[in-house]
Amino acid sequence: MMLLSSSSRGPQQQQHRRVLRGGGGWQYYVYGCRDDDENDDGNLMMMMMMRKSASSSSSSSSSTHAALTKNDEENRRRRGGGGFGTSTSFLLNKNDKNEEENRRRRQRGRREFSSSSSTTKTTTTTTTTSRSRNRSKSETSDDEKKENKTTTINVSYPAFQVWGSNTAVGKTLVSGGVINAAAKSSSSSCLYLKPVQTGFPEDSDAQFVAACVHSGESESGGSSIKRRVTTGAHAAKCRSVSTETTTTTSDTMTTDDTTNNTNIIKNVWCHTEFAWKIAAGPHVAEKLEGRPVTDEDVVNAVRNRLEEFYNNDTNNNNNKFALVETAGGVASPSSSGNLQSNVLARCRLPAILVGDGRLGGVSVTLTSYESLLLRGYDVACIVLSNEGYDNHEAIAKNVPSNVKVFSLPKLPHEGDGQKWVHAQNDAFRDMYAHLVQWHAKRVEKLNGLAKDALDTLWWPFTQHEMVKKDMVAVIDGRSQDDFVIYDQKTETMQHRFDAAASWWTQGITGDKANESLHRALMHACGRYGHVMFPENAHVPALEAARGILNGPAKTWGKRVFFSDNGSTATEVGIKMAFRQRYVNLGLLSKDGIERAEQANDANVLNALPKLRILALDGSYHGDTLGAMDMQSPSIFTGSLQTPWYEPRGLFLNAPTIGLKNQKWTVECAEELVVAGGSGQTSSTAAVVLDRFENKADVFDVKKRKASSAAARYQALIDSVLDNAERLGKSGEAPEIGGLIMEPVLHGAGGMILIDPLFQSILMQKCKERKIPVVLDEVFAGIWRLGVEGAWELLDYETPDISCYAKLLTGGLVPMAATVTTEEIFDSFYGPGKPQALLHGHSYTAYPIGCAVAAQALKVYTDETMNPNFSSSSSSFTSSSTTTSKSRRSIRLNEFWDETTLKRLSALDSVERIISVGCVFAMELKVPDGGPTGYASNIAKDVVLKLRKYGIQARPIGNVLYLMASPTTPRESCDRMLRAVVEELTT
Amino acid sequence: MMLLSSSSRGPQQQQHRRVLRGGGGWQYYVYGCRDDDENDDGNLMMMMMMRKSASSSSSSSSSTHAALTKNDEENRRRRGGGGFGTSTSFLLNKNDKNEEENRRRRQRGRREFSSSSSTTKTTTTTTTTSRSRNRSKSETSDDEKKENKTTTINVSYPAFQVWGSNTAVGKTLVSGGVINAAAKSSSSSCLYLKPVQTGFPEDSDAQFVAACVHSGESESGGSSIKRRVTTGAHAAKCRSVSTETTTTTSDTMTTDDTTNNTNIIKNVWCHTEFAWKIAAGPHVAEKLEGRPVTDEDVVNAVRNRLEEFYNNDTNNNNNKFALVETAGGVASPSSSGNLQSNVLARCRLPAILVGDGRLGGVSVTLTSYESLLLRGYDVACIVLSNEGYDNHEAIAKNVPSNVKVFSLPKLPHEGDGQKWVHAQNDAFRDMYAHLVQWHAKRVEKLNGLAKDALDTLWWPFTQHEMVKKDMVAVIDGRSQDDFVIYDQKTETMQHRFDAAASWWTQGITGDKANESLHRALMHACGRYGHVMFPENAHVPALEAARGILNGPAKTWGKRVFFSDNGSTATEVGIKMAFRQRYVNLGLLSKDGIERAEQANDANVLNALPKLRILALDGSYHGDTLGAMDMQSPSIFTGSLQTPWYEPRGLFLNAPTIGLKNQKWTVECAEELVVAGGSGQTSSTAAVVLDRFENKADVFDVKKRKASSAAARYQALIDSVLDNAERLGKSGEAPEIGGLIMEPVLHGAGGMILIDPLFQSILMQKCKERKIPVVLDEVFAGIWRLGVEGAWELLDYETPDISCYAKLLTGGLVPMAATVTTEEIFDSFYGPGKPQALLHGHSYTAYPIGCAVAAQALKVYTDETMNPNFSSSSSSFTSSSTTTSKSRRSIRLNEFWDETTLKRLSALDSVERIISVGCVFAMELKVPDGGPTGYASNIAKDVVLKLRKYGIQARPIGNVLYLMASPTTPRESCDRMLRAVVEELTT
Repeated sequence: MMLLSSSSRGPQQQQHRRVLRGGGGWQYYVYGCRDDDENDDGNLMMMMMMRKSASSSSSSSSSTHAALTKNDEENRRRRGGGGFGTSTSFLLNKNDKNEEENRRRRQRGRREFSSSSSTTKTTTTTTTTSRSRNRSKSETSDDEKKENKTTTINVSYPAFQVWGSNTAVGKTLVSGGVINAAAKSSSSSCLYLKPVQTGFPEDSDAQFVAACVHSGESESGGSSIKRRVTTGAHAAKCRSVSTETTTTTSDTMTTDDTTNNTNIIKNVWCHTEFAWKIAAGPHVAEKLEGRPVTDEDVVNAVRNRLEEFYNNDTNNNNNKFALVETAGGVASPSSSGNLQSNVLARCRLPAILVGDGRLGGVSVTLTSYESLLLRGYDVACIVLSNEGYDNHEAIAKNVPSNVKVFSLPKLPHEGDGQKWVHAQNDAFRDMYAHLVQWHAKRVEKLNGLAKDALDTLWWPFTQHEMVKKDMVAVIDGRSQDDFVIYDQKTETMQHRFDAAASWWTQGITGDKANESLHRALMHACGRYGHVMFPENAHVPALEAARGILNGPAKTWGKRVFFSDNGSTATEVGIKMAFRQRYVNLGLLSKDGIERAEQANDANVLNALPKLRILALDGSYHGDTLGAMDMQSPSIFTGSLQTPWYEPRGLFLNAPTIGLKNQKWTVECAEELVVAGGSGQTSSTAAVVLDRFENKADVFDVKKRKASSAAARYQALIDSVLDNAERLGKSGEAPEIGGLIMEPVLHGAGGMILIDPLFQSILMQKCKERKIPVVLDEVFAGIWRLGVEGAWELLDYETPDISCYAKLLTGGLVPMAATVTTEEIFDSFYGPGKPQALLHGHSYTAYPIGCAVAAQALKVYTDETMNPNFSSSSSSFTSSSTTTSKSRRSIRLNEFWDETTLKRLSALDSVERIISVGCVFAMELKVPDGGPTGYASNIAKDVVLKLRKYGIQARPIGNVLYLMASPTTPRESCDRMLRAVVEELTT
Repeated sequence: MMLLSSSSRGPQQQQHRRVLRGGGGWQYYVYGCRDDDENDDGNLMMMMMMRKSASSSSSSSSSTHAALTKNDEENRRRRGGGGFGTSTSFLLNKNDKNEEENRRRRQRGRREFSSSSSTTKTTTTTTTTSRSRNRSKSETSDDEKKENKTTTINVSYPAFQVWGSNTAVGKTLVSGGVINAAAKSSSSSCLYLKPVQTGFPEDSDAQFVAACVHSGESESGGSSIKRRVTTGAHAAKCRSVSTETTTTTSDTMTTDDTTNNTNIIKNVWCHTEFAWKIAAGPHVAEKLEGRPVTDEDVVNAVRNRLEEFYNNDTNNNNNKFALVETAGGVASPSSSGNLQSNVLARCRLPAILVGDGRLGGVSVTLTSYESLLLRGYDVACIVLSNEGYDNHEAIAKNVPSNVKVFSLPKLPHEGDGQKWVHAQNDAFRDMYAHLVQWHAKRVEKLNGLAKDALDTLWWPFTQHEMVKKDMVAVIDGRSQDDFVIYDQKTETMQHRFDAAASWWTQGITGDKANESLHRALMHACGRYGHVMFPENAHVPALEAARGILNGPAKTWGKRVFFSDNGSTATEVGIKMAFRQRYVNLGLLSKDGIERAEQANDANVLNALPKLRILALDGSYHGDTLGAMDMQSPSIFTGSLQTPWYEPRGLFLNAPTIGLKNQKWTVECAEELVVAGGSGQTSSTAAVVLDRFENKADVFDVKKRKASSAAARYQALIDSVLDNAERLGKSGEAPEIGGLIMEPVLHGAGGMILIDPLFQSILMQKCKERKIPVVLDEVFAGIWRLGVEGAWELLDYETPDISCYAKLLTGGLVPMAATVTTEEIFDSFYGPGKPQALLHGHSYTAYPIGCAVAAQALKVYTDETMNPNFSSSSSSFTSSSTTTSKSRRSIRLNEFWDETTLKRLSALDSVERIISVGCVFAMELKVPDGGPTGYASNIAKDVVLKLRKYGIQARPIGNVLYLMASPTTPRESCDRMLRAVVEELTT
């Protein structure tokens, strides 16, 4: 409940306040607070909930509390900080090296708590953490932020987030009612959490909710309810300067149920974490009042309080129930100015949406509902008052039938809050029952997913025999770069960095960037749905095309052919290349009109020779037959996969680069041409051509073109192409119809860095011989390697055709594009349909995909949304030659710390390291006699160990790789690299 | 502005009213209104705006208006209804056979208007239509609804829709301000339209806006402004029973600018179309007060008024400006109960969103903004008052920078509306300038799209040489089954039925169904984005899998392998079939462990023979190489497309069905086996096997299995398979590895109906010989043919593998599924990765696609969302045998009127007709000596003629087809069929 300060309240808002303020005049104890001094308040504010609760069995009074002196507090600090009921314990447990001691301390806390003889008392205290000192920008330390990455959300008990469709709709009344129903039901302990409160302490939703529980009849005869109202360190600062604060307490707070003859103690904990005195939106209050709170702080507070409640509030039974109440409306700004619906999506508790019963309330309720959906929330129910318009009926008609809509009577007048809440006891009991049941169904569903998956799905590239039920990752959602994975054993939702970038597709990390992408998707969905493409024009397709032509295909691309995935994009690319090759060979006319005649001339058509492709051994272009035929034989293309596969290529052993024992090492096979095709470039016998100290040097292709390696490449390539030409002319082998390759990095082939010098020279040589060059940038393109087009790393050698997919849509939906020049387009242009490219897919250039692609391409190059992009950055290549082509030389900041990479490369267990753009990979040495390649498990072992650092990686045989999004903050990469170092060195 | 009735107004709402009510006490003239008698009010209420405007040059008074008697009105009716300024003219023009007379009448209206000497007068009249009599459920006749389909929205002048993020945010104040700014700017005529008003006539936003224009200083010296305030027939009924209605007018309405010495007359027309007396939401008002208004009525009113304004309000210049103000908030229910944001999306004017400046207003504004986006609206700007919270700042931070945010001062108190509006003259002038500029940019962009498309795109299956700029359809959006196409010549947005179902993908028609699909998409987007699939489980994938297994693949499907499109789905299908075939032939072990050893045994692998496919000539399975190789040679597979193509099949001439001269005729080629492959089944020489009177009989496969045709099929098939087996054994030809076919309908092959009896027998025979059967249901499956699985039409013969795509996602995003049995899954199951199916795409089972698919499958079988589905329906097959399998026999209601089809089939110009499920097709006879097949243009001619009926079809050579969605209402099909009849018979 966000309320105005008295001074700025107009009459209208006053009325809202009147209607919604709960019971009258809650007031607070403040201990030892002096003033708002940032540097010295930590220890003064420190006080222990648990100690008091244990030491005072009588009803709390100001004098009792005042007995908690500075000395007590300092004793506790010496003991190591937290204890039961404080904000500290959880973080300390994580941070402290001595885990055993922490465990004991926590258990002691529990004992203390459960042996408490005080069952009929409400204590009002301030909790804080020992870390609150010396914080400047944020109230939370860096350490806590890091810890957050492995923090989990417990789903073993029902916890819901209460959202308002507007301010003043009765969120707190509903919270009070539901918490009261929960407390009065059979043996539930409750947490009510208000992470962000303004107008504090005059307005305290936590106090109001606690009061709701106090009064009214008890329905759980024999049990007693103990209420605690606590305040986080940040919120407590509001009190220290609040002149209205008194030390008296109202009578109603003193006792609750007076049945003493029972062992069942139900705890109702009402907590306010962050607060400002000014009664306005948190972003306004923070601006005026200071004491900033970051989004991370808020998220951590929610996670930590829920965890604390779970860990510590234990009694004879396990029933727990929690509500977290938001501030203002669904899309109200958080204190950081970011929308709280975005911020809290990192916890993504199921939602209770409090609707608006007033005139116009149908609209604001439904738009709020949709806004929650767009952020991936599940809405468990909608509840709203009936202010005379029966809004609930219109709302129920416009949400799915599984979203239950509860109607409550008109909201009360000021001071009548509690009375009103208790008058709706039955409704709230129903609501509580619904929520508990909803939660149970959710957990049941979650628990069933792994088995369902094993029973009905057929995963790609997966041997199902090798996947046991406990290996199935049940993915409940995504949060920025993290998977949110449900762990059935611990009944938690775990955030783990998606270190495979979901098969190398992911590109967008930040909330703002994601929101922009999601809105683009939503708008195209509503506007177009899907509209067929041929002979049609629509804005999303044209914006996507322009984005590609001015982006990854800048300087050379003129035409965009859309399709659905990398396989189709490369098949289209080869069709284009072969046609052009026929024209280049003089077998088809350059002139479209002449060609139209040829297209109907059987003599001409029958004379067109079969063509083969020039390609690199170990490259991967997809799994449709045409894409397979471009690849050298391997496990992926064997006759067991399809008897139709034929290796239709001249396959080359490409020279590779790896960081080996601290040196960037260039290696080249003795023979450039592969006989049968190995499927993996790394296994070919190789000689070392060159060694470099720095990555920048090995990637300075311009400079390296003067090296002996370049001369060797040129000679090898010339020899191969001469021979191929001879064989083609003699008919011993098909002519070469085109070159296709993945620039710089073979992904599926085992994260092999191909020497860009070699590829650059190969492209030059092919173009000289009029062999069309196709780049498969599906994986490497669009910033994955730190540059927009991967060809930029090949000394800016441009292809005739390039294929883009994966990152094209920022990692949201499938779409691919085959980009080419006007020359190639012209080879298909002319009268008559037969010479057209008769290829297409139903959803070609579907507006949703195009709109998302257009926006994603913008995000990558938007400094406000991509922390790694700055239009002036050129961090990758040191050569001065590239800076002259400044327009082309924009590179993302380096993702992986080279010093650390070198350190890793020196380890005995490491064969080689590579890093380029978002990609880090490490090939582990296979022990003598151990299984090699894909059969090796050693990378998998490391992968499993990384989970405890909150990293979900996937191995490729004995290769471990980590992949960021182009927009992933550097800190995330540092954190992952540290985890790898820690696992490999300790 | 939606306001409470006095009786139900609480103090809080009173206050809103106070703040927002504009100028004081507007009142209305009512002429000849008696009471609310539905049967007799039409003629009494009829009155002519234009006549009065022309006949009264002095200021209007009650006596002048009262002179308009029933006689006048009846005279007009005899004349044929409408005239200038009425609601009638537009519809009459459309309905009336005598178009020429209508044109003249309209021109007369214009002349009358422009010659009017009254330049300084406001007239307040009621307009109505001559069709308002005898309406029962709706106020609009069926004829009008049909007309609507060809109605266009003019985009030659700026027209915006004003939305509120809540009620009481000042929509009408903003409208008044902008209209005033427009009127005062250089020579704009303005329309302010309030389609739906409640609390009428006490509350009349049209009156308020007119008043805003009246007062204030004129900035267009030399011009004069003439205001008209009119009321539609429906709204006028409110007055007839309003006891407060008086016949006096306030002074302020009498005159406007008094500068008379000028030729420039600017008209400001403020119109209220539908209204209720009760001041509540329209859905509530209608419930209590009656006089229902359908969604179509509202949409038609908006379209027609805008058109009328464009056509009639002509003066010396062409500057025009229109605002359409909504009622309540963005998602407030319309009178029908449907959300007005959905209803008005059929017009989809660019939006002005009036934000909420109050506490909590950031949230309701942003959620409203997103809700508009989801319905495909463009938001031109957001404007909101500043009630002390600087909401505009937070809002501007959270919308894209191209959405301009205007801040206005605090909203006024009651009665101060006009004064407040005029105090913001500068702001509104800026806003108006922004809107005019925004519109100009929009039109400029629209005008550039066709050229951009021709310059940068490469359309699938398109010979660009054949596409001239004026042939490019610029698609501005989609509305249910309609494309919204921008026509540069007429500067209109035209709704045309997407009769190609966007390459056969479209499935969802109704607003409710679309909304459910869009919300599913949005939720998955926010929740998951994309998460990689192998070894993972997520709810959308499992719900999609379950939907498929319990839906189109019910009774036989057990495993779902997801991919991206039909091509990949069939390639996967063939990989599955071939593996199973090897197992069935004993070349690989049934036992997974044994097979794991074989997978590493070169002897076993090398001994695996090449396999070929059994397929139907003329079938289409996609454009990737594997899919091409399954097809017989044709223009789509020639060496001009790719030299890698090889027809790897034994291709059969399948018997066909067509409605020929009123008889359903079964024809069969003499030779079952195709020598070379023709690419089109229809061209093979054929003998007539059977003729049927009714479609039901020809599709009663069960019964037909006893026919002589069946015996013939069996013999032919046995002979072919025996021979193939012999050739396979002898090594003369590869063994048959599987059967693949499109069930019942060859789409791309020319809309050929394949005899389901033949296919059913072929499947039986293959299964007997352990040849795995793959159905390519990409086009035919999922209700396209009126049944869920197309195999249901084959006497329920089930496949081993089936491929689904297109309709799988309801026509929104690409996704495909290859479904199979546990037996085939087992052929890939066992230790070791080599025997797994090593096929996959990056976005396999992406959550957005899966969530949409799961929802789409639900929509098709939801009686509340699919008008053609009823769980008890079995309209297709008359055979009693199928009803016993009632679970399987659910069929959609017939889409195409068989009597009409027969009539068409009897025409000389028609070769054959087919209809099955959503598909109607008509092969036209090619004139002797004319170009045949794809080269024929005769279907294209019909296609172009159909555009004037609001139908956008695509020909396939000499075949014209029309395709509905499974959820398209029957009336749409009737309408299209009528158009075809009209074009072919007149």
